[in-house]
Amino acid sequence: MKDTHIKEVAQIEPKNPILVEGLPGLGLVGKIAIRYLVKQLKAQKLAYLYSPHFPYFVLVNKKGSVRLLRGTFYFWKNKDGQNDLILFTGDSQSQTIEGQYEIADRTLDFAQKHSVKTIVTIGGYRMEAKDKPKVFVAATAQDILDNALHAGATVSGSGSPIVGTAGLILGLARFDKIAALCLLGETRGYLPDPLAARSVLEVLKLTFNFDVDLTGLNEDIAKAETMVTRLQKIEEKRALQAEETRKEEDKKITYIS
Amino acid sequence: MKDTHIKEVAQIEPKNPILVEGLPGLGLVGKIAIRYLVKQLKAQKLAYLYSPHFPYFVLVNKKGSVRLLRGTFYFWKNKDGQNDLILFTGDSQSQTIEGQYEIADRTLDFAQKHSVKTIVTIGGYRMEAKDKPKVFVAATAQDILDNALHAGATVSGSGSPIVGTAGLILGLARFDKIAALCLLGETRGYLPDPLAARSVLEVLKLTFNFDVDLTGLNEDIAKAETMVTRLQKIEEKRALQAEETRKEEDKKITYIS
Amino acid sequence: MKDTHIKEVAQIEPKNPILVEGLPGLGLVGKIAIRYLVKQLKAQKLAYLYSPHFPYFVLVNKKGSVRLLRGTFYFWKNKDGQNDLILFTGDSQSQTIEGQYEIADRTLDFAQKHSVKTIVTIGGYRMEAKDKPKVFVAATAQDILDNALHAGATVSGSGSPIVGTAGLILGLARFDKIAALCLLGETRGYLPDPLAARSVLEVLKLTFNFDVDLTGLNEDIAKAETMVTRLQKIEEKRALQAEETRKEEDKKITYIS
Amino acid sequence: MKDTHIKEVAQIEPKNPILVEGLPGLGLVGKIAIRYLVKQLKAQKLAYLYSPHFPYFVLVNKKGSVRLLRGTFYFWKNKDGQNDLILFTGDSQSQTIEGQYEIADRTLDFAQKHSVKTIVTIGGYRMEAKDKPKVFVAATAQDILDNALHAGATVSGSGSPIVGTAGLILGLARFDKIAALCLLGETRGYLPDPLAARSVLEVLKLTFNFDVDLTGLNEDIAKAETMVTRLQKIEEKRALQAEETRKEEDKKITYIS
Repeated sequence: MKDTHIKEVAQIEPKNPILVEGLPGLGLVGKIAIRYLVKQLKAQKLAYLYSPHFPYFVLVNKKGSVRLLRGTFYFWKNKDGQNDLILFTGDSQSQTIEGQYEIADRTLDFAQKHSVKTIVTIGGYRMEAKDKPKVFVAATAQDILDNALHAGATVSGSGSPIVGTAGLILGLARFDKIAALCLLGETRGYLPDPLAARSVLEVLKLTFNFDVDLTGLNEDIAKAETMVTRLQKIEEKRALQAEETRKEEDKKITYIS
Repeated sequence: MKDTHIKEVAQIEPKNPILVEGLPGLGLVGKIAIRYLVKQLKAQKLAYLYSPHFPYFVLVNKKGSVRLLRGTFYFWKNKDGQNDLILFTGDSQSQTIEGQYEIADRTLDFAQKHSVKTIVTIGGYRMEAKDKPKVFVAATAQDILDNALHAGATVSGSGSPIVGTAGLILGLARFDKIAALCLLGETRGYLPDPLAARSVLEVLKLTFNFDVDLTGLNEDIAKAETMVTRLQKIEEKRALQAEETRKEEDKKITYIS
Repeated sequence: MKDTHIKEVAQIEPKNPILVEGLPGLGLVGKIAIRYLVKQLKAQKLAYLYSPHFPYFVLVNKKGSVRLLRGTFYFWKNKDGQNDLILFTGDSQSQTIEGQYEIADRTLDFAQKHSVKTIVTIGGYRMEAKDKPKVFVAATAQDILDNALHAGATVSGSGSPIVGTAGLILGLARFDKIAALCLLGETRGYLPDPLAARSVLEVLKLTFNFDVDLTGLNEDIAKAETMVTRLQKIEEKRALQAEETRKEEDKKITYIS
Repeated sequence: MKDTHIKEVAQIEPKNPILVEGLPGLGLVGKIAIRYLVKQLKAQKLAYLYSPHFPYFVLVNKKGSVRLLRGTFYFWKNKDGQNDLILFTGDSQSQTIEGQYEIADRTLDFAQKHSVKTIVTIGGYRMEAKDKPKVFVAATAQDILDNALHAGATVSGSGSPIVGTAGLILGLARFDKIAALCLLGETRGYLPDPLAARSVLEVLKLTFNFDVDLTGLNEDIAKAETMVTRLQKIEEKRALQAEETRKEEDKKITYIS
């Protein structure tokens, strides 16, 4: 395997397909969103992306079977709507700079092959969100950007970088005359964040006018909140103890001087 | 030398050959196992693997002669049994990500050229083994996995990664329609571990039904145990002294405050 | 995008063109200088340079539009003078060693295509400049070096390296029989330094005998000076506090011993 | 410049040429040795080696002229002896692993082109030498090794690695049927070490039976010794002060407890 390549495992005849990408990143927002769509829509496996720029280990599953790190494309036939979906997520992003560009390139080649005219990339945006996480949006075309804004998204801050595959796909899409949109959910980023993923999916379904029930994410959201609360308590306690220790030491020093 | 390549130094006509790989890794489990098989079975040199992804130094032998870092393939004609063996070990793993994939690729090419239908990779699994080290197993096919389980191995934990050549060969073997099995011996990992290697070899010979006397490893195992005991005593003493020092310092602080 | 490449967006018929390069580096001297020339001379966009060796993120502008990191070439038709100018700046330098050489190579290819006989590269030279920043100069040809010296530059110190694109273009220009000159403005380097950029531009316009009003930089220079003064005050205050703390601690120790 | 390449600047008709390599490394032993030979034998420039794997900066000389980092080959016509010499040194070693192999490859290609049958590489061996630095030797052929031993060298320790170009040339020379010898002078390694270089040159001239006056190195050797003595005094003083400080602190602690 000298280069990144894609191996198809099913044949499809897509109708105005939109490709939605969500590789692992901040808060795993993209990966959680795509995995939820795959499960909820019962999307079918379409192709695998392999790359020598992924980390050099393999994963073992429950039954002792082994597989390379990879990306996976899924296909959803949208019987009631206008656009079929091609969903893309995976185990990892590239470990090298050149690999980052190569994986984005191959993904765009694959999109072109299947006559994709619109790509959406999903990621996280590091921020301490109050209440409901916002969704920041950037795009290569004004009409698609406007649609996302109408669906509740906020324009991404000027000058802010979009790192990794989610960003490079947008940057490279121009050359292939594919419209591209990036949706970034507000997230603290250090824990899997299904709440941010839900915010992104709400914008996504409104922007492209397809239906998917998002209540299935509620359980994961509740669990994640419990986890955050517990970590915050641990951190508060640790901070308190550090403060106590500091005071004790201050006393000693005061005593001496 | 622009790419990884293999140079054959003998001609063979193998009978249903199995390739067994063990490059240096955790506890040198793979390398110790392969070197023991080569010595015990009097296997013959078959080929060298050279790569610009190995570290950039050469080794000097006793007589002042010099050689590149390399991998070496050995061949054992199994007169009484079903499968000849091709054994593979070497000085180092690749130093780059791309090189890791390239070396696994070339090894599989070589296996295919010699009509290998089954590959076994050997490595270490970091764990404080009590009593006899377990052997964890993962595989690309159910029948070969079952054989290893019957031979005493344990299914590798779900989600645990297998790093380096031992893992990538399994991951890439699928594309070449070669069945592949990975045997990982429990090891602390920071010292050469012949005990873990013996555990792996016991499973290996039972799985593939060939005979090799493993008592020759006993001396190395005894030496390694002496070494571990000595290091543990040094560590205990160091921990005791650290404790003493801490108490002394506590006294001083108490006095002051 | 497998390699660095240049995409032209305008057609030009240049008259004895000089290419002036200033990618980001120490004190952003080169980038500030080129951006000022582009604005002041109303230069037109000529071409973009894309590379998989740039960092793997994209930038978002005010309107939520996205673009890859890139270099940009601009063209200025010098109606009254002898030499048209091709100006080159960008978002970043290469992140890899090979990329550094590749980007310098592609820039020289582009220069040759447009019959450029002279290239100037601009950068910063780390030094605490007193009064007006000096401009150090190095070149591949004696006549162009002499011209820069007559214009007020100082010969660059022997043995001092010129790092990055500004240096490699000079080193590689020989092979293409293009004369090349490097102008390095004295700068502290850790803040954007329009004062150093102005010094370089003064030497540039005198060396190549073209006219450009530099007073437009004065406002930025004043702002930068205010910023430096503020940072210096903060630093002085911090140093003073550290000194106080040290004295306090000295007292305690003296008291104890 | 996509790959390492060599540009010849003179034409030669060498008589049984030996190539002697000494790129920068430990104690600059190889570079000092080659530069001395070039100067003393009045060798002529033969070719330059350029590589995108060298660091990405250029060097400025006294007159403000600029050049890429490079390796340089020199030629010495040995009128009275059996073997002409091709001498090779340079500014730097490769900064990447692949580049290390590539530069050694290109050097061997160049040697073959000029019908070189024997290559010598020179480097340093880290050790606190007492009295005169020893010269350790390793080789790809027994006869050439024996010659070096008769000339006063010592066999290199078994298992010790020879790092960088000096080592890889030996390792790769086998494939080209070129005999190769490595001479490593004992050196502390952190300062340029002309004394180690002289030891190596003494072995070299005796091994290959050519004459060169080495007294010209004496002045540099004396300077280097002065430098080492000065650094050692500074170090001793520093150690003494640290000891004093420690005692003072011990007193305080004793007083307190």
